[in-house]
Amino acid sequence: MDGPPPASPAGLSAFVAVSQLLGLTLLATTGAWLGRYRGGVAWHSPLQFNAHPLCMVLGMVFLQGDALLVYRVFRHEAKRSTKALHALLHGLALLIALVGIIAVFESHRAKGTPDMYSLHSWCGMAAFVLYLVQWLLGCGFFLFPGASFSLRGRYKPQHIFFGIALFILSIASCLLGITEMLLFKISDSYSQFVPEGVLANTLGVMLVAFGLVVGYVVTREEWKRPPLAEELALSMDFKTLTEGESPGGGSQ
Amino acid sequence: MDGPPPASPAGLSAFVAVSQLLGLTLLATTGAWLGRYRGGVAWHSPLQFNAHPLCMVLGMVFLQGDALLVYRVFRHEAKRSTKALHALLHGLALLIALVGIIAVFESHRAKGTPDMYSLHSWCGMAAFVLYLVQWLLGCGFFLFPGASFSLRGRYKPQHIFFGIALFILSIASCLLGITEMLLFKISDSYSQFVPEGVLANTLGVMLVAFGLVVGYVVTREEWKRPPLAEELALSMDFKTLTEGESPGGGSQ
Repeated sequence: MDGPPPASPAGLSAFVAVSQLLGLTLLATTGAWLGRYRGGVAWHSPLQFNAHPLCMVLGMVFLQGDALLVYRVFRHEAKRSTKALHALLHGLALLIALVGIIAVFESHRAKGTPDMYSLHSWCGMAAFVLYLVQWLLGCGFFLFPGASFSLRGRYKPQHIFFGIALFILSIASCLLGITEMLLFKISDSYSQFVPEGVLANTLGVMLVAFGLVVGYVVTREEWKRPPLAEELALSMDFKTLTEGESPGGGSQ
Repeated sequence: MDGPPPASPAGLSAFVAVSQLLGLTLLATTGAWLGRYRGGVAWHSPLQFNAHPLCMVLGMVFLQGDALLVYRVFRHEAKRSTKALHALLHGLALLIALVGIIAVFESHRAKGTPDMYSLHSWCGMAAFVLYLVQWLLGCGFFLFPGASFSLRGRYKPQHIFFGIALFILSIASCLLGITEMLLFKISDSYSQFVPEGVLANTLGVMLVAFGLVVGYVVTREEWKRPPLAEELALSMDFKTLTEGESPGGGSQ
């Protein structure tokens, strides 16, 4: 692998660009909905609830999605740096989501509304708690030394599968949240295609589209991160020593 | 590949069994919800609406999921038979879903309720229409002669990705439908953890679990259907002739 690094595969950059455009539009649309129709966002006020959808879309969707894309976007960087960025983005997503969760619990307490009774809250809380567990396991297995090469290799497919599954569950929880909020706030006019309903539905469709684009990029075989020359040599040495297998070419 | 066919990989049968148990429990739970709390199901009556959730869970979730599992369950059968069963199950799922859609439109007309205004209806209709398109494309590319070997090879990864994506969108639409129905019917008591709310939430969690198990089975690399000896030979001849490549071992 001497000379300039190979260019990114055709199409990958375009898909990543579309994902980022969609992601930013998601945030703008959530802001527009809350600002235009729901009085905006403020912490110590009756508007505290509105911090919830904003934080969840930013943390559990946009940042979580971007953390998944890191291995595709920075495909020719050293694996250690890419891995650190992957963990950092997920950590930031978790922090922002935690703020969003505090917002809804405090807002419920102020209004005397019960917690955790709806399907949205069950799915959303499951997504958040399992996302935290997944992050801790990921750090334990891949970021800190200790886990053996073969243990990491066995855990990696599970980490990838559950990572994508939790991203999907997060998006599904947002869709449930949108539906709940519309039926709580505009149940009388929702069926008349009022602008707020159409805007929030459109936000839902864009959330699905973001999930689709990110999911396509991370699952496409040809777009997987190629191992660097030194990783391949290391992997070859280890595999020959530990399992007597020929080295696999794939790497997350 | 002489001698008895190799056994299924360890774990696959257990996962498939769990998926079927979950699938049947899904149907039973939907039936229990509609029967115990919503007056049951009947066609030419005010209960016509209730045919909608039952048909959608049966068609768009259980049968669609089972159609995805066909290549893993019947892994040592001839590809042509497995493919026909895959197409047949998806076709049946589409038919049952169509009945479910007719039920909701007729029920809306009878009550004077507007159609297609909610996020549930947008996601659900998109899932159904794209599922029909995917089925037609699948039949055109893989079931009927005409498409070349290389064209099939290029379309296959797209077919698999969008197949799984539509299965997930179908489940997400069901979750939205459950939330809508609960907020329409028991909005006053839902927050007091009444049995109907807990049952319907549990149905939602089981839908997610079914999606997770089916998704795990169909995406696990080691559980992919191994090509039969004659398919491998055919693939080798074709690839050598058309592309000059060595044959790939993988096959859906």
